Amino acid sequence: MFQSFEDTASPDQGPPRLAALRAVLRDEALDGFIVPRADAHQGEYVAPRDDRLAWLTGFTGSAGHCVALRDTAGVFIDGRYRVQVRAQVAPDFTPVNWPETSLSDWIAAKLPGGGKVAFDPWLHSVAGLRRMQEALETVTLVRSDNLIDRIWPDQPAPPMGAVFAQPVDLAGEAHGDKIARLAKGLKAAEVAVITLPDSIAWLLNLRGSDIPRNPVPHGFALLHADAKVTLFMAAEKLADLGDHLGPLVTVRPPAEFLEALQGLTGHVALDPETAPVAVANALRAGGAEIVEQTDPCLLPKARKNEVEIAGARAAHLRDGAAMVRFLAWLDAQPPGSLTEIDVVRALEAERRATNALRDISFETISGAGAHGAIVHYRVTEDTNAAVEDGQLLLVDSGGQYVDGTTDITRTVAIGAVGDEEKQNFTRVLRGMIAISRVRWPAGLAGRDLDALARVALWEAGLDYGHGTGHGVGSYLSVHEGPQRLARTGTVPFEPGMILSNEPGFYREGAYGIRIENLIVVQEAPPLPGQTIAKLLSFETLTYVPIDRRLILPELLTEAERGWLNAYHATCREKLGPLVEGAVHDWLIRATEPV
Amino acid sequence: MFQSFEDTASPDQGPPRLAALRAVLRDEALDGFIVPRADAHQGEYVAPRDDRLAWLTGFTGSAGHCVALRDTAGVFIDGRYRVQVRAQVAPDFTPVNWPETSLSDWIAAKLPGGGKVAFDPWLHSVAGLRRMQEALETVTLVRSDNLIDRIWPDQPAPPMGAVFAQPVDLAGEAHGDKIARLAKGLKAAEVAVITLPDSIAWLLNLRGSDIPRNPVPHGFALLHADAKVTLFMAAEKLADLGDHLGPLVTVRPPAEFLEALQGLTGHVALDPETAPVAVANALRAGGAEIVEQTDPCLLPKARKNEVEIAGARAAHLRDGAAMVRFLAWLDAQPPGSLTEIDVVRALEAERRATNALRDISFETISGAGAHGAIVHYRVTEDTNAAVEDGQLLLVDSGGQYVDGTTDITRTVAIGAVGDEEKQNFTRVLRGMIAISRVRWPAGLAGRDLDALARVALWEAGLDYGHGTGHGVGSYLSVHEGPQRLARTGTVPFEPGMILSNEPGFYREGAYGIRIENLIVVQEAPPLPGQTIAKLLSFETLTYVPIDRRLILPELLTEAERGWLNAYHATCREKLGPLVEGAVHDWLIRATEPV
Repeated sequence: MFQSFEDTASPDQGPPRLAALRAVLRDEALDGFIVPRADAHQGEYVAPRDDRLAWLTGFTGSAGHCVALRDTAGVFIDGRYRVQVRAQVAPDFTPVNWPETSLSDWIAAKLPGGGKVAFDPWLHSVAGLRRMQEALETVTLVRSDNLIDRIWPDQPAPPMGAVFAQPVDLAGEAHGDKIARLAKGLKAAEVAVITLPDSIAWLLNLRGSDIPRNPVPHGFALLHADAKVTLFMAAEKLADLGDHLGPLVTVRPPAEFLEALQGLTGHVALDPETAPVAVANALRAGGAEIVEQTDPCLLPKARKNEVEIAGARAAHLRDGAAMVRFLAWLDAQPPGSLTEIDVVRALEAERRATNALRDISFETISGAGAHGAIVHYRVTEDTNAAVEDGQLLLVDSGGQYVDGTTDITRTVAIGAVGDEEKQNFTRVLRGMIAISRVRWPAGLAGRDLDALARVALWEAGLDYGHGTGHGVGSYLSVHEGPQRLARTGTVPFEPGMILSNEPGFYREGAYGIRIENLIVVQEAPPLPGQTIAKLLSFETLTYVPIDRRLILPELLTEAERGWLNAYHATCREKLGPLVEGAVHDWLIRATEPV
Repeated sequence: MFQSFEDTASPDQGPPRLAALRAVLRDEALDGFIVPRADAHQGEYVAPRDDRLAWLTGFTGSAGHCVALRDTAGVFIDGRYRVQVRAQVAPDFTPVNWPETSLSDWIAAKLPGGGKVAFDPWLHSVAGLRRMQEALETVTLVRSDNLIDRIWPDQPAPPMGAVFAQPVDLAGEAHGDKIARLAKGLKAAEVAVITLPDSIAWLLNLRGSDIPRNPVPHGFALLHADAKVTLFMAAEKLADLGDHLGPLVTVRPPAEFLEALQGLTGHVALDPETAPVAVANALRAGGAEIVEQTDPCLLPKARKNEVEIAGARAAHLRDGAAMVRFLAWLDAQPPGSLTEIDVVRALEAERRATNALRDISFETISGAGAHGAIVHYRVTEDTNAAVEDGQLLLVDSGGQYVDGTTDITRTVAIGAVGDEEKQNFTRVLRGMIAISRVRWPAGLAGRDLDALARVALWEAGLDYGHGTGHGVGSYLSVHEGPQRLARTGTVPFEPGMILSNEPGFYREGAYGIRIENLIVVQEAPPLPGQTIAKLLSFETLTYVPIDRRLILPELLTEAERGWLNAYHATCREKLGPLVEGAVHDWLIRATEPV
């Protein structure tokens, strides 16, 4: 079982640790220390060693900061964690709504006479620090070693997960070819520093196991204009890799990374949004000229090649069959007989039974009734609720397979469900179908299409407080940029980009609805009389029935009904051969036309 | 008749004038001079005196620049004028596609060794000049008096159109109250310079007649933080105004404007996007500190008050009745019996017959067949074509009334029209209905909604190359910012903003389709269970039947058909009492449900 249901932190742990941190502040004549959730690689998941925010405060969300001052400590959390933080931190910590209140505004208000606040330069990006510094007038930000590491007696060691090759028949392009292609594109720089683990994993066709859910190894890399790469990664992790890396890649110990940066001269490219301040400082100390540009792996990684797309299709069929087995089992259980944790266990068991599951791609969200309205609900032994007659059950989950990463949400009727739920489910579905069906002229980005997913909800005065979709990796992170299907999405969609399509609606205290498929951008087949030079569309990757008991067909247009029936016919055609007996019977019933 | 059909310029006029300009360049040791279409007020229409671009080159479009160098002269035109410019300028002038090629890039390429290019600081905005300067490395831009004015022997005098008051029962707010409201909002500045004529007209409840189509007087104003205004405007123009302006407004001659600017000290606000460079230079010369901020009238002017909206409704009913008389007449003419000019004359005659028409709000576009595909087609005696059986006729027009400005496009079937035209007309209509029906959470801007108007066209691989809508003034300019319904529209929509809703489709060389209503942003009536705190929607202002002969009802959804039939029922209800006899019969037929 990958998922656990424990509370890994408790509010009691925070106060003595905060006291210990304040003792260090006094010794060092500092007024404060910033503890971000981030590690040096700015990923969504961190290794236990890097989970300093949770260790200090008890707050376990996937994003946030603590600013510990001598007499107050703010925990900055975004909209997803407003409720959770109150249950997790002791009164010594003050939750602060972020980004409504910025770190710098809060620090400036709490230290009106000025002061010295320390930060660990490995844990802040160049651009992040710059934004903070610009906003702070009297307070000085000073670099420091990590003060949490000084007071954390049993801090875990850095992860040493084995690294393995992603073979070219799954990656679709040899890493030597990727290196050559990107080296040519460096333009003004002689070398680019790469600090994102999924960029390194993609570039070198490596996968790893340093952190949960994301199959990437921690490390840093230098991409040289002469098409060579220096990889800073513990040799122990690479023991089983054989000669995969080849002559283009030189491996050096992580401890030599700073020294290597200081040894660089000329123009060195770095992504200010993700590279740690420590990297920029080392480059400057050595006399290199920094060229700020986006991580050169980001766009090529986002544009999946044909082999990766074929892999994604295969992974989604396998995952879809597991989902169908799960859904058929779920429908056979009497309402009230299951808990949210039972649901998670049953679904993970079906995915494991494929014998291909490397990890789940994130903690399964299993929210019954009002829990479904908590967008990032993670069930624990404490919160675990029975799934009752008349409720909606929202299940958002995914698997990591060697050929692809999946992410799917289905909302299921438990017993007899009210009409309001059905109406709003149908509105959410209409938005999800609008995205599935849209064609558009190349050049548009997520923000140009986001409204299409919402207009059926807006019509009833309803909306959802998250983006419509995020990028997804190929056996990499389930959240991957730079494309987004959201009002903040400004990167134009290009063929090969995989995204989620997941509108929702949440009635606080009552129920949550979300329907999510993964989709991939493709050139649309040419149409007679077409005047748009390059027309793009989405191909759907996820094929799993959508609960027909929650759909009011009279609220669908002919075209929407046509899409839905064709989608279900394809589910039947693709998944039918993969399931048998009662599950097959369920599939047939679940894919009848509406 | 407001509209004329002459060609006001000819290609022959350019070469001798260009030669005269080059003689001045030699005398002044200059390498070039920039001649923009703009006047000092950056409006869309200019007075004959300011039409320097047309005088020099023969090109009469509403936007463009000429850069006259010693041995070459580029005429920069945007996508609307690519064809027109070739017919209007002599071979001495080289059309340049703009903005694909920027002025600065072209100048830099033509003067590789550097040089001195002069400009008139009254005709370039602060931000416009800054962008040019930043892009030019070796070429120097130098201020100069206007070299065209030196060589234009019979240049008309500045316009002296009479100014009249816009009474408060039409403006909805006394100008004293507007001045007080805006003066309070000046914040960091003690005075704001206002250079846009429609801002001044709105602020002081004035209208004028200096330029065609836009009922504004030319002038400049200073808004002081103590709620007083200095107006720089020729006293002759104000002769009939009586005591409208009152004690808050001091009138000074235009010739004193520069001197007054030089006399200002402290913080002076100026809108860099519209204020002439000459204004900023005079302020700096006098020692004032310039605060760059948006013209303080822009947003308040865009948010129409209830009186202005009531006026708009009345103007649209009056204009709608004139349109219906015109359309009924048009339908009674045998195909092939009319020309495009006949159409313009008949429509203007109907508007004049209201006895309320102050001007047309722009040159009526009357495009039959292939002419309809030229988005800004203006018919002349030379281009005038017969309106033939089987064609689509696109008529885009509007009126200036004291209570409101109208802008409407209807595309009409002449005789028997092909199926492709009907299909694409129906797709355009679906986009226009989508905008008419949408509700959305407050905070969104035009770019968030623009796709809704296009998705039915995109589905068939079709699109249109212009925005979906522009802001519209209240008996002011028919094109008014800052809101836009377009991918470039970033200003959030607020209640009271009037916009056009005008999707289209253009098959080059064959036909053009556009359907346009004006709409006004309103708070939507609350809905049961609504979760969006503030829900906005559009109220339609334009009520004129849409040609049912071009609609394929089977391509509409139930909701779209419902909107269309309700729209036509309202047309019948509102316009029925205003028309009689055969026109009334026509209205009844034209508003039958589909």
